[in-house]
Amino acid sequence: MANKLNEARLGILVGQRNYRALRAALADLNPVDVAQFIEDLPEEQGLLTFRTLAKEQAMDVFAELGSDTQQAIVEAISDRELGQLMEELSVDDAVDMLEEMPAALVRRVLRQAQPATRKLLNQFLRYPENSAGSIMTAEFTDLRRDMTVEDAIKRIRRIGEDRETIYTCYVMDDTRHLVGVVTVKDLLLAHDGALVADLMEPDIIAVATTTDQEEAVQLMAKYDFISLPVVDAENRLVGIVTVDDAVDVIQEEATEDFEKMAAMAPSEKPYLKTGVFTLARNRIIWLLVLMISGIITGGIVAGFEEALAALPLLVTFMPMLTDTGGNAGSQSSTMVIRGMALKEILLPDFLRVIWKEARVSLIVGIPLAAVNMARVMLFNPGQTMVALVISLAMIATVLMANIIGGALPMLAKLCRIDPATMAAPLVTTIVDALSLLIFFSLSVAMLAL
Amino acid sequence: MANKLNEARLGILVGQRNYRALRAALADLNPVDVAQFIEDLPEEQGLLTFRTLAKEQAMDVFAELGSDTQQAIVEAISDRELGQLMEELSVDDAVDMLEEMPAALVRRVLRQAQPATRKLLNQFLRYPENSAGSIMTAEFTDLRRDMTVEDAIKRIRRIGEDRETIYTCYVMDDTRHLVGVVTVKDLLLAHDGALVADLMEPDIIAVATTTDQEEAVQLMAKYDFISLPVVDAENRLVGIVTVDDAVDVIQEEATEDFEKMAAMAPSEKPYLKTGVFTLARNRIIWLLVLMISGIITGGIVAGFEEALAALPLLVTFMPMLTDTGGNAGSQSSTMVIRGMALKEILLPDFLRVIWKEARVSLIVGIPLAAVNMARVMLFNPGQTMVALVISLAMIATVLMANIIGGALPMLAKLCRIDPATMAAPLVTTIVDALSLLIFFSLSVAMLAL
Repeated sequence: MANKLNEARLGILVGQRNYRALRAALADLNPVDVAQFIEDLPEEQGLLTFRTLAKEQAMDVFAELGSDTQQAIVEAISDRELGQLMEELSVDDAVDMLEEMPAALVRRVLRQAQPATRKLLNQFLRYPENSAGSIMTAEFTDLRRDMTVEDAIKRIRRIGEDRETIYTCYVMDDTRHLVGVVTVKDLLLAHDGALVADLMEPDIIAVATTTDQEEAVQLMAKYDFISLPVVDAENRLVGIVTVDDAVDVIQEEATEDFEKMAAMAPSEKPYLKTGVFTLARNRIIWLLVLMISGIITGGIVAGFEEALAALPLLVTFMPMLTDTGGNAGSQSSTMVIRGMALKEILLPDFLRVIWKEARVSLIVGIPLAAVNMARVMLFNPGQTMVALVISLAMIATVLMANIIGGALPMLAKLCRIDPATMAAPLVTTIVDALSLLIFFSLSVAMLAL
Repeated sequence: MANKLNEARLGILVGQRNYRALRAALADLNPVDVAQFIEDLPEEQGLLTFRTLAKEQAMDVFAELGSDTQQAIVEAISDRELGQLMEELSVDDAVDMLEEMPAALVRRVLRQAQPATRKLLNQFLRYPENSAGSIMTAEFTDLRRDMTVEDAIKRIRRIGEDRETIYTCYVMDDTRHLVGVVTVKDLLLAHDGALVADLMEPDIIAVATTTDQEEAVQLMAKYDFISLPVVDAENRLVGIVTVDDAVDVIQEEATEDFEKMAAMAPSEKPYLKTGVFTLARNRIIWLLVLMISGIITGGIVAGFEEALAALPLLVTFMPMLTDTGGNAGSQSSTMVIRGMALKEILLPDFLRVIWKEARVSLIVGIPLAAVNMARVMLFNPGQTMVALVISLAMIATVLMANIIGGALPMLAKLCRIDPATMAAPLVTTIVDALSLLIFFSLSVAMLAL
């Protein structure tokens, strides 16, 4: 249906240095696809291809490129070209680029920008990482309340070219305070003489520049917004978050949670583009921490050496018990972490969560215990007490695992730690130690070891 | 900033049966907030509150309510009211509602709908679950190529009221084939006499009704679309997916992956609204399957009973080794599963992934082995060979765990199984068995047990 991206045919044109045909072939493609093609080329050919693009398309493609390629282009172009680039790039794309660049290059870029642009970029670069300010764009459409629909549409037609989205317009008073929101749909559906003041929605849902980006995008998802206004401490409109950036944030935040929940430091780049040393660095810290916890669990086992010597059969139950405890704990912690990320579970729900997990534990734990009971009676006839011990230990382990899995992420949130770090790996390690402690203590007490 | 939802004050009005004041207070609120308030009330009061709403607001609020509350309302209203409701509800919201309802109620609802609406609903209800057809809406804005900008804007102003989004318009020929896409921004920025045919983008990115919803929304995220056309087998436009629904799908798909990756059947409702029996049912199958695998691991341990009796110290290394293997495997499987969900990793990358994981394993495994070496030499002086065995077992375990974690999700995809099921719990169980097999085999061979 779409003009399919045919990298093979385009590659031939690059190989033949047929830049005229290449430029023509690329002209019909979506900037996202052109950017992907350039990323797939070796750096030198990528740069040459970028340079063949028509100026207007080049700007759109540049915004879609990865930070490494952007940097290579910035290093290769002249100061004059760089100055042009910075004027035409939208502020949020420029900020994204600058945040990934070495300081010396940032200084060169900022020197080439016009003073007004430079001031804006400096302001945006100061917003904390992962704040609404850091993902917003300054290119919004502003209207005044005393405009008629006709005036408003005229203004949109005049300034719209440079605006990232024109569909939601922001109504400001003389001091740039945000007083209302009106959509292009509202304007088009009203008659030409109607006043913006009468059409606009005066109850505005907005966030501060310092609001966490996750909170901002969850608000947009909740209210189905295609843009969200961002205001400063004096309620003056400074930018908007657009829905396409919100979608990116939602995906990034989910990826970050997946990584944290698997005990990794979050990565910035896609897996295949991340070097092995970076991957290893992101993983080793938690592996080391959790390995040391595993050593402590080993110490607990060592404390029961006599019991184990008296009844070696007990060892064979260890993997099954610790696995099941770990799996149960990872189930409950995952439900609670995800529920909190989507704001479906809040801190005041703590007791409801624990009570729910306790009941689920019994419904789940009793059948699991029964299966074990039956198995031991069948394969180890005469070991009725062992069967009883392992069954009781199973119920206690599932109960303990589910409650720890449910409680830890909420306690983390209370201590302002990211709940996602309290996921399967950490829960599993804690549950391992406790489940073996329960199991061996029950064995010693009930089997008189 | 916004008119804050004050449930306490609104609750007082409900308690006083002061419906006039309640209606006035709710009139200024966002439908999303009104729906939340109604959900928080007991059912009877919720119904009364819904009935006090002005008719237009009621429709918007209804679309935002949960399926249980929607059903209670449908059961409570008259056939005439139901008929009105079905005409005013947008098709995708109506379909969402019907999909959750018991069959008898669906029949009553469809009987009250107008024939044209009924036909459309029946058609939509037939699209497979999780397909683009199942999340699309039929309310799109269609234009013709021979229209001028002035004609097009007139048409949008006339029909826009009933359209879910007017901002992307679809250009169709006489046989309803999709021939182009034009945005309201393009129309507004052009002069009145320009032809739609000249402004429209003829290279259309569209999906089929049967395309997986995940694929459709990833396409929207990639190209920053606010709506995506859905066509039938003859390339006739049948609906559009809007970005607000795409955002919901992205969040739902991520939640589903989180649940599957923690070995749970995906749930339909938020955690706090799911009953304990449903939660238990979603969890117990995998716990049982993995517990039985744990029993097999126990059998492997039992096979080395003699070695364990000869050197009981070995038992204390079991938790540390299996935990670390499980954690390493969950790290690599998570990276690969998420990368595949975001289409960053594709099946042909298989060997690149395995090679990457092999190198990461060595960078990570050697320091972990060194820590163990040092520890055993320090706390168990004289046991140099044991220290060597545990260090070698550690490196082998991390290597094996990372490769299994990287390979399993990709092999699953190849067999058309959801890669998310090949996550931490399953990987951990497999790795547990193999790591103990490696460890005990090395012990027997190197320590001459």
